[in-house]
Amino acid sequence: MSDSPPTRVLLAGYGGVGRALHNIIAERRQSILDRHGVDLVVTGIARSDKIASSDEGLQPGHVQWARGNLMDELIWECPADVLVEVTPTNLASGGQPAVGHCRGAIKRGLHVVTANKGPVVHAWNDLKERAEEAGVQLRAEATVAAAVPVLNAARTAFAGDTITRIEGILNGTTNFMLTRMATEGSDFDQVLREAQELGYAETDPSGDVDGHDAAAKVVIMGNEILGLNLGLDDVDTQGIRGVTAEASEVALAHGYRIKLIGEVADDGTARVGPRLVPVGDTLDVGGALNAVRFHRELGGPVTHIGAGAGATETAAALLGDIIDVARGGIKTRQAVPA
Amino acid sequence: MSDSPPTRVLLAGYGGVGRALHNIIAERRQSILDRHGVDLVVTGIARSDKIASSDEGLQPGHVQWARGNLMDELIWECPADVLVEVTPTNLASGGQPAVGHCRGAIKRGLHVVTANKGPVVHAWNDLKERAEEAGVQLRAEATVAAAVPVLNAARTAFAGDTITRIEGILNGTTNFMLTRMATEGSDFDQVLREAQELGYAETDPSGDVDGHDAAAKVVIMGNEILGLNLGLDDVDTQGIRGVTAEASEVALAHGYRIKLIGEVADDGTARVGPRLVPVGDTLDVGGALNAVRFHRELGGPVTHIGAGAGATETAAALLGDIIDVARGGIKTRQAVPA
Repeated sequence: MSDSPPTRVLLAGYGGVGRALHNIIAERRQSILDRHGVDLVVTGIARSDKIASSDEGLQPGHVQWARGNLMDELIWECPADVLVEVTPTNLASGGQPAVGHCRGAIKRGLHVVTANKGPVVHAWNDLKERAEEAGVQLRAEATVAAAVPVLNAARTAFAGDTITRIEGILNGTTNFMLTRMATEGSDFDQVLREAQELGYAETDPSGDVDGHDAAAKVVIMGNEILGLNLGLDDVDTQGIRGVTAEASEVALAHGYRIKLIGEVADDGTARVGPRLVPVGDTLDVGGALNAVRFHRELGGPVTHIGAGAGATETAAALLGDIIDVARGGIKTRQAVPA
Repeated sequence: MSDSPPTRVLLAGYGGVGRALHNIIAERRQSILDRHGVDLVVTGIARSDKIASSDEGLQPGHVQWARGNLMDELIWECPADVLVEVTPTNLASGGQPAVGHCRGAIKRGLHVVTANKGPVVHAWNDLKERAEEAGVQLRAEATVAAAVPVLNAARTAFAGDTITRIEGILNGTTNFMLTRMATEGSDFDQVLREAQELGYAETDPSGDVDGHDAAAKVVIMGNEILGLNLGLDDVDTQGIRGVTAEASEVALAHGYRIKLIGEVADDGTARVGPRLVPVGDTLDVGGALNAVRFHRELGGPVTHIGAGAGATETAAALLGDIIDVARGGIKTRQAVPA
């Protein structure tokens, strides 16, 4: 095991998530090798205006940057086994430039692990076909609810079962806002400002409050878990701008809380909107938590609850995927005689 | 894929869970083959007083039984690749006779998948060593919270993280009882009778209400997930006989509910006892639900909630494990030249 060559990681993007992942891989290299037989090293980093690469591995805090917008070239030239796509999600651009990064990496024979929802929402089935032809793997656990197991749980833990429907709180920002509206009696504009001050919401909050982020996750779960072929336009999407503190109060008086719920079912149902959730229900979780409930033919419903965002949490999900493809990749290589 | 030989399943035990699993495998054979490339067939069944086997596979409802207490002999002679241990759990007997079934199966080169907690509580580290030497796999997902992902989530979905502590509601019977005491104001003897009438509790309820069942799950999670070497005696175990409706009422007035919580941590802490859980906490789940919260270094806490018992639910967890070892087993065989 200790003699197997390192798995070389190329980071496309170096914001909070990329830096957290770089630190974690550097700090945990030996323990990951001991536990999983996988030796991880970051050999390349591409940002919008800088690149860096090293056969021996790049150390956090000691990266020698070269100037230039050379991301695509780096994907082709940097020594690497796995591309980790952590550039900012841009759903409006058809998922570009991240889709291009993923296609380039697959063409070169790299596995792809993404936290960027763009490629998964806009080009997943196409990328999967290309990956299968190229004999590489694609993983996107980090795109839905960060380190709460969703896509990989469906793929491995529920292998003996059939998932028929998935529903949940898929956006932490709006859950934080709805929770504050219900507990403080604040109105929409107040809690939005609060969410923006705390860094939960963007200056342009539309992606969260109009339900687009949750809709993207509905598309991802529908396509990856239920085998559908959804686009964003197939999701009946409604946000939380119409929710008032008064409505929350009336709901609570009747034993309900208002939550923004995303739902996708094997019959093609795909929607996002405010829904009444009974107090004490497993989807009745507060703060910025995410909650995903899988309905299964045999095992019944199971709900996974945890933080759905955060740089470290997202990096943890990426690392799980990287270890998984590294183990699978090694097995594939062993099975094919050179 | 379709030409690979069937994976032959030998059931040790044929109670509710064994029969449910037999039915599910028969009903889903084609869909499991299509989805996972694994062709499952039940070739042997051993009960305490009857046995049956068939190279072509046994059909539910058409099993030809032979008389005799021949379980051990059948494990040796029946055509099989995987032993599924679903005889009743007997924690007081040192896990026998199930530990013997597992040892015999491993010695013969069979993978072992168990819903019986006995071997996992009493002989897991020994069985793991034997399995590693024999090149076979051991799985026990069904022993903790049935089809709620616990052991396999830790092994696969949390591979990139380090779990430091696990706590949860691990026994559905006592959760049902505590929920009824809190909502109905009933006392212990009343809710125990109710639980017995509904089939949740045994005639001798000690395993549930004195915390022994939860303690067994603490041992299993501690040894399998945290790498400890716990026995039942290492768990500081207290049951729910001392809980009263009045105590529940006082707790609720202060914003808490009384729950029987099992907990195990990487520092060796292992305990079961009634604990105050804040109303609205992710462990505040009612009815007969189970809830398991994993504390992770990177991803933070994540809670899995679902039914922790039931024949179909337990069979679903077993089936997931069987598919997993069948896929791993095929890979192992392919990697080793004949």
